[in-house]
Amino acid sequence: RIALPIFASDALSSVGYAPDEILIMLSLAGMAGFSFSLPIGLLIAAVMLTVVASYRQTVHAYPSGGGDYEVATTNLGPTAGLTVASALLVDYVLTVAVSVSSGIQNAKAMLPFIAGHEGLFAAVVIVFIMGINLRGVRDSGGIFAVPTYAFMVAVASLVLWGLFQVLVLGRHLAAPTADYTVVGPSGYDPFAGFVMIALLARAFSSGCAALTGVEAISNGVPNFRPPKSKNAATTLLMLGLIAVSMLLGIILMARITGVKMVDVNEGAYFVTPTGQEIHTEATTVLGQLGQAVFYDSFRPGFYFLITVTMIILFLAANTAFNGFPTLASILARDSYLPHQLHSRGDRLSYSNGIVMLAGAAVLLVLAFNASVTALIQLYVVGVFVSFTLSQTGMLLHWTRHLRTETDPSARAKMFRARTVNAVGLAMTGTVLIIVLVTKFLRGAWMAILAMALLFVLMRLIHRHYDDVVEETALTDSSDRALPSRVRAIVLVNAVNKPTVKAVQFARASKASTVEAVTVAVDAEDTSRFVMRWESEDMPVPLKVIDSPYRQVTQPFIDYVKQVQSNNPRDVVCVYIPEYVVGHWWESLLHNQTALLIRTRLHFMTGVMVTSVPYQLKSGRSTAARAKAAAVRGADRGH
Amino acid sequence: RIALPIFASDALSSVGYAPDEILIMLSLAGMAGFSFSLPIGLLIAAVMLTVVASYRQTVHAYPSGGGDYEVATTNLGPTAGLTVASALLVDYVLTVAVSVSSGIQNAKAMLPFIAGHEGLFAAVVIVFIMGINLRGVRDSGGIFAVPTYAFMVAVASLVLWGLFQVLVLGRHLAAPTADYTVVGPSGYDPFAGFVMIALLARAFSSGCAALTGVEAISNGVPNFRPPKSKNAATTLLMLGLIAVSMLLGIILMARITGVKMVDVNEGAYFVTPTGQEIHTEATTVLGQLGQAVFYDSFRPGFYFLITVTMIILFLAANTAFNGFPTLASILARDSYLPHQLHSRGDRLSYSNGIVMLAGAAVLLVLAFNASVTALIQLYVVGVFVSFTLSQTGMLLHWTRHLRTETDPSARAKMFRARTVNAVGLAMTGTVLIIVLVTKFLRGAWMAILAMALLFVLMRLIHRHYDDVVEETALTDSSDRALPSRVRAIVLVNAVNKPTVKAVQFARASKASTVEAVTVAVDAEDTSRFVMRWESEDMPVPLKVIDSPYRQVTQPFIDYVKQVQSNNPRDVVCVYIPEYVVGHWWESLLHNQTALLIRTRLHFMTGVMVTSVPYQLKSGRSTAARAKAAAVRGADRGH
Ligand SMILES: [K+]
Ligand SMILES: [K+]
Ligand SMILES: [K+]
Ligand SMILES: [K+]
Ligand SMILES: [K+]
Ligand SMILES: [K+]
Repeated sequence: RIALPIFASDALSSVGYAPDEILIMLSLAGMAGFSFSLPIGLLIAAVMLTVVASYRQTVHAYPSGGGDYEVATTNLGPTAGLTVASALLVDYVLTVAVSVSSGIQNAKAMLPFIAGHEGLFAAVVIVFIMGINLRGVRDSGGIFAVPTYAFMVAVASLVLWGLFQVLVLGRHLAAPTADYTVVGPSGYDPFAGFVMIALLARAFSSGCAALTGVEAISNGVPNFRPPKSKNAATTLLMLGLIAVSMLLGIILMARITGVKMVDVNEGAYFVTPTGQEIHTEATTVLGQLGQAVFYDSFRPGFYFLITVTMIILFLAANTAFNGFPTLASILARDSYLPHQLHSRGDRLSYSNGIVMLAGAAVLLVLAFNASVTALIQLYVVGVFVSFTLSQTGMLLHWTRHLRTETDPSARAKMFRARTVNAVGLAMTGTVLIIVLVTKFLRGAWMAILAMALLFVLMRLIHRHYDDVVEETALTDSSDRALPSRVRAIVLVNAVNKPTVKAVQFARASKASTVEAVTVAVDAEDTSRFVMRWESEDMPVPLKVIDSPYRQVTQPFIDYVKQVQSNNPRDVVCVYIPEYVVGHWWESLLHNQTALLIRTRLHFMTGVMVTSVPYQLKSGRSTAARAKAAAVRGADRGH
Repeated sequence: RIALPIFASDALSSVGYAPDEILIMLSLAGMAGFSFSLPIGLLIAAVMLTVVASYRQTVHAYPSGGGDYEVATTNLGPTAGLTVASALLVDYVLTVAVSVSSGIQNAKAMLPFIAGHEGLFAAVVIVFIMGINLRGVRDSGGIFAVPTYAFMVAVASLVLWGLFQVLVLGRHLAAPTADYTVVGPSGYDPFAGFVMIALLARAFSSGCAALTGVEAISNGVPNFRPPKSKNAATTLLMLGLIAVSMLLGIILMARITGVKMVDVNEGAYFVTPTGQEIHTEATTVLGQLGQAVFYDSFRPGFYFLITVTMIILFLAANTAFNGFPTLASILARDSYLPHQLHSRGDRLSYSNGIVMLAGAAVLLVLAFNASVTALIQLYVVGVFVSFTLSQTGMLLHWTRHLRTETDPSARAKMFRARTVNAVGLAMTGTVLIIVLVTKFLRGAWMAILAMALLFVLMRLIHRHYDDVVEETALTDSSDRALPSRVRAIVLVNAVNKPTVKAVQFARASKASTVEAVTVAVDAEDTSRFVMRWESEDMPVPLKVIDSPYRQVTQPFIDYVKQVQSNNPRDVVCVYIPEYVVGHWWESLLHNQTALLIRTRLHFMTGVMVTSVPYQLKSGRSTAARAKAAAVRGADRGH
């Protein structure tokens, strides 16, 4: 099955940073904190499995792939739906930022020269992923399958080979930080009950980053093989079990090998056995485990683990680049985003979304220097807003269906499903509150502010489209007036092929009158032009408009207005010869006045504007290139 | 006469900085330098009067206002003309930067809080002047007349009241720096002959900034009252005499009152009578003179002098904002700049030039923190390149005319004129060499590099236009083929007023076939749309194009191509309904797909594209505003 690897990277890659963040938070309590790592891991595993069970209901009930947005919109109305959409859009940006940052942090275990330039390296990786997505690779699942399975194998080997060495071979495995002491910041007294609970809550909510990526599967049901819902549900369960196993295995091994982390930003630090203080952050948990388990016994295992961890994290970022345009397309269909984003097959709209996503993620990694600990404060809140609203929606969904359903066995199933979603709601709602309390001032406010801004923006866009629909609705037959005649005006200022083409096309259109019009900006030029027009025996009369102030646009517009007001029941068609060039800088040299005139004419009712393009040589070669690019673009769509 | 004040500000305002720069350069020789200020002033006066005499010949011979560009092009060919044009474009930018910087430096004598933020204040002033010019004030000479005459009165009063106090009342007038000692940097030994000559050459070439602005008059002959040439020549002479009097008067008063300046950048500094070292730059010469002459005897005179000095310098910058679009228009006419700049009455092209000029000047004042001493290194070279090439052109002009002229009295006149220009050429050429030698490494290279880049750019633009003219020239009758029929295709995706309007306009155009075409991006939407089309009884058939990859552009383009290749002798006319909105952000929500399709269609021969605009309410109110703006714009042109 291909579907597992495609979605697995986002969900599984989280074990690349979730254990780290748990230990980092616990370090604030000094040495006393680390003993809580396993209980917290188990709690997170419980939440994870509950959420997975809940989502299994969702993929059965909503197989169309709208995901949380669809569930919330259908059951709770557009405001909830739009809230989920805002949360998910922010979530995509943070998935990219956090995943790439964690990939860079993990890579440091192998490539120490990255240290000090994390933000820059992360930005480069994001731009690289953006480039791949802009080019439009044919995303066959195969690309994802190998590293996903490799990552599972690597983590499984780490845990199993580690346990084997310790339990069977009786070896002592020590992480690089095993014999360090951790001193927490003085502000936290680990023996004051409330402080400890607050710290555990922070560690738990940071660890909940392990759940990010689960939501992606419910958005991707249409991509599964039939029976789609069943396959998606099975994948979800498998992924959940694998993720939980990996998470708990990693935390267990970290306990056994004595891995310690410190939150350097809040003042925790290491003390070495010789009494030296270390105020820099430690290697990632997977990096330390790799060293403890593989470095001495099987060194290739270390490099393999770090490499596939980095790759899976970058693939998770790539997943967001696939998901973002899909969600944008759905939002555009519902008039919350510009309509052109709907046709996601079109290269340009697709590209805009990708560039925006990459740009926002690059800003984040540069602003936070690819610090996962800092970024994670912004990350988790969006996912849990989405989880919570989605579970609420599912609750209402089942309640509504139970109202009409009479078949007892179906009712029993629905009751069961509702119970699952109710437990899920209670769980995710509680986590959301914990996350908000522990993270709001530490960065979540930024994510919430971004969501709020997106929410307002999408509301405004929606209202604008509504207004336009209302304004343009067909009301009575008067909207259907057929103009009696067409008067053609060809804007000319030279006797050359483009002008002749425009004149002939205008004549072919069989308008009731055709005249060429020029604006006399320069008396000498104009008289030369008029003589040329006569001598070349051009087939339509030439009208010269005076321009006392050496303008072109205004006198021409005035003339068109005059023609129009003299013939109010006719439509005026202005033909403008345009030069088609191949490079953007060439286009600065042509058609600027035409563009200005066209824009002005657009504001006049009863006037239409016809461009008669003349292809210069450079334009012709570009057309060929554009065609090739379009064909490549179509390959990408699916 | 109104013409004098308009051009006077650029030429006269130079006395706001030229004396300063002479003294600053002389400070490098320590106390020994300042005794050379009057001889150098006299030398500059001599160059000034020679240049004025030369330009009096030019305005008689070339009354059309093309100025140095026309003289060089006509007599020396397009390469020389383009060199002069590049020099003048750079000169406009520097006139703005130097004038505003000097205005700010002078204002400091009155408003000491500016100190430390000179660049910022200068940038704000430039943006303010840009804003005024973008709005398009009716530039009546009156605005200029009052401050110009006020400046002349202020400087005349300064000199006369100062001399009266010293010579008649026997008072001792002392500048703030009068009892300071100046220590030059150790690198310069004022008693080594060659070093002293080099220093005097530098002081002379910086002082030649006094000549900048003279060239502006020869570009403005058409703005004078008839007899234009005679009035322009008279104005030139008057201006020259006034400028020379002011310059020498100021330098004389600086000698009498003991004004001293230091070049802090090269390490010159003051020592006070108590032995304290001062390493900051001194108040401007006019500021010091104002204090010496007016502060104790008639304080309002001080404030009046500083205020009008500041105003005349800002007015000089404003003059460049008038001159730059004029030159750009002439260069556009000659295909050296984009053609749309030619019709300078058009608001948009006019605005582009103004924004570019302001942007470059703002960059300069920020980069050099509004230091006149630094900017002057870039300034003078362009003016003298222009002077020198123009004088060479005039020499050839007279020589050519002498070849055919037979009337002895006319020949005598021409001989005299040629002699004047020959002396002018010798003088300006010598000054140009001195300027190049003394300033090249100190900053002039930047101005020359900018000129070279502009030169190459304008050459490339010219060549592009030449190629296009050649490519589009009418060659034989085959260019004039009249297509046999027009096939109309209306792009539709909704049943509403804009669509109906487009359909009806297409029908009114009496094409041989009219069909509506839609691309089926979303199956459900499309079938709803088709049903609506039938039920509303639309008068043309609807064709639905499949889009397997959810694209719009490519399937539509392919369809148009197919229609075209089935009917090779016809022309296809694609009608696109477009929404006309009032704000740029609204336009992001509409017509993006239409824009994409139009761009693609432009690359196809035998296809024309007709926009049928539908004006939404917001678009209609904007149209009214645009009209009002256009009327304002027309007021400005003349
Ligand atoms: K996960
Ligand atoms: K994730
Ligand atoms: K995610
Ligand atoms: K001057
Ligand atoms: K000047
Ligand atoms: K100037």
